[in-house]
Amino acid sequence: MSALLGRPAAMLATVAHHQIRLSCDVPLDGGQVLRRPRIAFRTYGRLAADGGNAILVFHALTGDQYVASDHPVTGKPGWWHRVVGPGRPVDTDRHFVICANVIGGCMGSEGPALDHPVTGEPWAIDFPVVTIADMVRAQVALLDELGVGRLLAVIGGSMGGMLALQFAADHPDRARAVIAIATAARHSAQNIAFHEVGRQAIMADPDWCQGRFLACGRRPTKGLAVARMAAHITYLSEAGLTERFGRRLQGRDRPSFGFDADFQVESYLRHQGMTFVERFDANSYLYITRAMDYFDLGERHGGRLADAFRGSRARFALVSFDSDWLYPTAEARRIVQALVAAGAHASLVELSSPHGHDSFLLDMPELNRVIDGFLRATERAP
Amino acid sequence: MSALLGRPAAMLATVAHHQIRLSCDVPLDGGQVLRRPRIAFRTYGRLAADGGNAILVFHALTGDQYVASDHPVTGKPGWWHRVVGPGRPVDTDRHFVICANVIGGCMGSEGPALDHPVTGEPWAIDFPVVTIADMVRAQVALLDELGVGRLLAVIGGSMGGMLALQFAADHPDRARAVIAIATAARHSAQNIAFHEVGRQAIMADPDWCQGRFLACGRRPTKGLAVARMAAHITYLSEAGLTERFGRRLQGRDRPSFGFDADFQVESYLRHQGMTFVERFDANSYLYITRAMDYFDLGERHGGRLADAFRGSRARFALVSFDSDWLYPTAEARRIVQALVAAGAHASLVELSSPHGHDSFLLDMPELNRVIDGFLRATERAP
Repeated sequence: MSALLGRPAAMLATVAHHQIRLSCDVPLDGGQVLRRPRIAFRTYGRLAADGGNAILVFHALTGDQYVASDHPVTGKPGWWHRVVGPGRPVDTDRHFVICANVIGGCMGSEGPALDHPVTGEPWAIDFPVVTIADMVRAQVALLDELGVGRLLAVIGGSMGGMLALQFAADHPDRARAVIAIATAARHSAQNIAFHEVGRQAIMADPDWCQGRFLACGRRPTKGLAVARMAAHITYLSEAGLTERFGRRLQGRDRPSFGFDADFQVESYLRHQGMTFVERFDANSYLYITRAMDYFDLGERHGGRLADAFRGSRARFALVSFDSDWLYPTAEARRIVQALVAAGAHASLVELSSPHGHDSFLLDMPELNRVIDGFLRATERAP
Repeated sequence: MSALLGRPAAMLATVAHHQIRLSCDVPLDGGQVLRRPRIAFRTYGRLAADGGNAILVFHALTGDQYVASDHPVTGKPGWWHRVVGPGRPVDTDRHFVICANVIGGCMGSEGPALDHPVTGEPWAIDFPVVTIADMVRAQVALLDELGVGRLLAVIGGSMGGMLALQFAADHPDRARAVIAIATAARHSAQNIAFHEVGRQAIMADPDWCQGRFLACGRRPTKGLAVARMAAHITYLSEAGLTERFGRRLQGRDRPSFGFDADFQVESYLRHQGMTFVERFDANSYLYITRAMDYFDLGERHGGRLADAFRGSRARFALVSFDSDWLYPTAEARRIVQALVAAGAHASLVELSSPHGHDSFLLDMPELNRVIDGFLRATERAP
């Protein structure tokens, strides 16, 4: 139990991020408008004179703009340093890479953890509920602000893949290539169910304070840790968990006959929960999971997913992992079917990995080769 | 949020159960001894003169002794009334059926929700951690107390199947037939992980009061509801959830752009959490999940599951469901392989159902036919 008592996460609120205030407003699907929202982002590499080497990377639910540079809170390497960096498939020697924190996030973009620009109090749950399309809208406004026109590619995994697909639907001519990895074009009932468990865990924590924990000087670390633990199971495969932990005990020869973390898998999950709360805002977790649950790209186009991609001039690569039960290959296949039906150029690559959904974040040479080959082919194409 | 504010569960503590105090002590795997524990149970039908028609039914994690009679708290029909009752496969006109609440449970058997016999205070977390083998030991003592010798059959689903297998291992000559449904001979890393999330959700609730909530007049209903919600997802299949709920909204035409239960699946899960806390004790949830996590029948026999069944004279039927991802067919296959290697008579039946693990509790005519046929064949056998 004591393992989940959150350590003070003093750094989260005090870290400074590179951030700009957009010069335009961002209208939201829910009907509200974000007045000149702040967007925190990182760039890597240099924009070519013809502007043709820009790649926009979208992060996942708990990701951020630190795709290829050390995380300012945890000090860990960028979350996709295996894919983005000098000599990597997204090659910062060759490409100009942009990665922005989504709106609703907690790493410097407009969201519940920032102070409301007028009241000076934290937005908290007065922040409007945003959608994946809203997140894309804010990032397109950022591109305009930065003077970046047509992109070489957009790319993302998990929720990042959803943003990539949404971007392709809303801006059919703005990216030459779209790479969507371990993702879905809509959240399933099971996906929603797991997110709802996480939200209820957060909101059940009295330190959530009806959402106003920042103003109260508290943080719902226990609820957020439980939410992370539940979600983390869905990121791994049953076989991967068995291979990595099995039923092995943690630092003992026999069970304690108590409620300590006897098993390695328990200890691992508790650690995932504990470390997560140091770098993430509980309200952002609510907002971003909600955006994902609302995501149904086909539904926005009269129930026909193919219609979302009519007129797209991009080349699409969908990548799935055979052990990913969160966003399984069947969903990627459905997306490719819609793309082909819409007349788009689309490929599906199913990679074999025992590590489940999280595979896209791990050392996967085959994934790197697929991204590298697809980007180079796009660069060569007329 | 307010949906999870637990209604007072006044009835749980005040319901009287048919209960006896064993005349013997029950030694526990953890080294402690339960002094003449109380066991709450129900019987249905009449024991034949030759004693040959007795069937012991084991309940699952959140089940109880009310297998074929109305639940005294919820008023709902017995949890297995489709399988146990007059003219049912476990036929109370023909069989003498015994079903007891497991020790560690909260429906009248010795467990954390009962008062400690010496102090008069609730056992709470002073109750010793018990195992599946301990639960079986207590129920065998109950059989002795009732004068029931060799059983026609033991039968159970999910955790009940674990008890059936443990019973067969520890008492190779005491049941002529063993029917284990939707179950496992050991808890996997993923199984443990989901249980650990539930336990952390309960222990994170300040109303858990370090386990002493009964003495404090409080109940960790929010934490227990979250635990139930997380577990409930594992009882259903992805396809079943999609078929039943999909992305349909609950009582509205468009999303609320808030954190209410917009989707039917959210509303359903919240309801599952809310109703569960009215009939279940949070500490019992900790103890019983722990017992399941500790379960590894092969490990108790030198790591060879087959050795658990050496010398068994019972006929075994293992039943699995093709959409059950909690205890999948592969695990049932492993058990049958061990049984056959041990020289036992064993069959595996995989039934097709879209409803996942929970299928064993639903209206499944094929399951009824399998149980009926297997029991009748056992009755005819010499």
